[in-house]
Amino acid sequence: MAEELPREPHEQQPAPPKRPPTSVDVARRAGVSQATVSYVLNNTAGGRVSEETQARVRAAAAELGYTAHAMARSLRSGQSTTILFPQLSLPTGPMITRFYEGLAVRLGALGYTFIYHVDSQAQGLEAARVWASLRPVGLLVEAARISPEAIALLRTAGTRAIIVLSESPSELAPTLLNNDSDVGACAADYLLGAGYRQLAVIVPREANIMGLGLERLSGMERVALPRGVAVERVDMGFDEADAAQLAERWKRGPRPSAVFAYNDEYAMLLMRALLDAGLAIPQDIAIVGADNLPLGSLLRPRLTSVHKGDVAGIDVTADTFHALIQGAQIDIPPIRLLQPEIVVRESA
Amino acid sequence: MAEELPREPHEQQPAPPKRPPTSVDVARRAGVSQATVSYVLNNTAGGRVSEETQARVRAAAAELGYTAHAMARSLRSGQSTTILFPQLSLPTGPMITRFYEGLAVRLGALGYTFIYHVDSQAQGLEAARVWASLRPVGLLVEAARISPEAIALLRTAGTRAIIVLSESPSELAPTLLNNDSDVGACAADYLLGAGYRQLAVIVPREANIMGLGLERLSGMERVALPRGVAVERVDMGFDEADAAQLAERWKRGPRPSAVFAYNDEYAMLLMRALLDAGLAIPQDIAIVGADNLPLGSLLRPRLTSVHKGDVAGIDVTADTFHALIQGAQIDIPPIRLLQPEIVVRESA
Repeated sequence: MAEELPREPHEQQPAPPKRPPTSVDVARRAGVSQATVSYVLNNTAGGRVSEETQARVRAAAAELGYTAHAMARSLRSGQSTTILFPQLSLPTGPMITRFYEGLAVRLGALGYTFIYHVDSQAQGLEAARVWASLRPVGLLVEAARISPEAIALLRTAGTRAIIVLSESPSELAPTLLNNDSDVGACAADYLLGAGYRQLAVIVPREANIMGLGLERLSGMERVALPRGVAVERVDMGFDEADAAQLAERWKRGPRPSAVFAYNDEYAMLLMRALLDAGLAIPQDIAIVGADNLPLGSLLRPRLTSVHKGDVAGIDVTADTFHALIQGAQIDIPPIRLLQPEIVVRESA
Repeated sequence: MAEELPREPHEQQPAPPKRPPTSVDVARRAGVSQATVSYVLNNTAGGRVSEETQARVRAAAAELGYTAHAMARSLRSGQSTTILFPQLSLPTGPMITRFYEGLAVRLGALGYTFIYHVDSQAQGLEAARVWASLRPVGLLVEAARISPEAIALLRTAGTRAIIVLSESPSELAPTLLNNDSDVGACAADYLLGAGYRQLAVIVPREANIMGLGLERLSGMERVALPRGVAVERVDMGFDEADAAQLAERWKRGPRPSAVFAYNDEYAMLLMRALLDAGLAIPQDIAIVGADNLPLGSLLRPRLTSVHKGDVAGIDVTADTFHALIQGAQIDIPPIRLLQPEIVVRESA
């Protein structure tokens, strides 16, 4: 039986004070005006405040446990230092993580606080109300999750800079181009240069990434069609039975000479099925993956893969936020997120 | 040469208004008191405000583009609805992502906004000042990144609930146990039951995950030592040359009968090296991974792996936050994050 005796509260969870100390409290304790507190604590006192008064203000702030309130200023002036990044609706791979971690560092150096709102599905006006309640001065959001009405609402709430993430340049705001089609273009360019002429591309059946797969197909076609080469679309789920069926079909009937397999994990799945069916890689069929995961060099044959390059857009994105927040009136061309390049190993 | 003509500003980036509308503005426009606006917009009017006045307040809010300010209340009362999760210093795998996404949904249902501060390195008082400036009512943070002084500072700033993530129960605050040792215990329990008696464990050489590897070693020892079985610690980096050297050593000299290989990726690396060296899996040496990644069933032999189970602690963590914020005086036992279980395939 569980003990039902009353328990002492956790020692480290005392009741908090009624409200956090404000600059008004600091001013009262130090016997100065609120403006003086503001000058001192923001290091903008210049010659206006004596050393002794400055020391008194700092001591009062320390005694009260005063900390700045990042959003407090936005109540008065519409200005905050928070830049908000609602969680992406796409599955986030290592590339996008590297991107937003790099962006956080760069924005931090410019004086901003970069936060991530954990909710991958919210969109439209309802989402905008939640985002606006956090009073961000900047917002980086997928284009499909925002509307002109949502943008107007955010601007009224003080958001000065909005950058949208999109597959193509957006009408809504400056665009960070998730140029995944360039990943397909890179694969096609390599395969055509290596002499392959029967090209296919795996498009995942999974609803949440099928769109990315179609982008990569479109990039392959952009490169291949002008050179008189068609690209066969092959739908495949991340499923061993689906891959085995495809391998069997290619063993018995006509097959492409090279396949861009969407990414390294799909490439690993497909290679497994092709090898189990008795096909040789790359002799019977060449395979290219994407993402350049460490596992690629552990496969036999070692996997040729499109590496998404160092994330190109970090500094430009951070600087664009800063310029827009500062009120720059600039025309901003789309920023390209990816710089794909081929890593050639053995599979193609 | 670049065009140097002045450009028109981007159409969607008009200058924002000086400050966002507040409830005072709404009150003025509707000709009512600020308290009335608060009752109406928070749906707490009850019978106190006529339908007609309520309609007038709502119309005024809509005309002004008023949105709530999540942090505004914290300026007055010390109460916000934001729960902050500073980015982990550990690399985040699929398990922790599933955890914090699930926690966001659950906290959202309880009326909180869950945000993630993108900065994996900040710690101590300096970090606490940044976190406090976001005025969270709740904070979920690694124990190593916080101190009693930082907790005091956060409490003064209005943070009512702090939960720390730690490998062992913390003195600082209620603990969400990142019980990784249980992953090792699960692997050892399975291997001993299957009759293996010469056990080894891979500890990654990489500084950022070596600690996790040592936790898993300690879990194996917790299970194996009382049964008279020692566990050999084997250091290996995620590096093909390192793995090949290890395989060669085990081919020539004494070797364990079973290895817990830290996780599925290290298992894949080690299996590749052992197979290349001519050792048979599991006959010469059995391998267990962890994480139960899809790639495990693509390996030959198929990989036996410790699955970290459905994330157990989500609901308990959310409910604990809510209880602490509501002021509950409770003694909170450590919450276990992981529920590991073995997925048996062919490699062990």
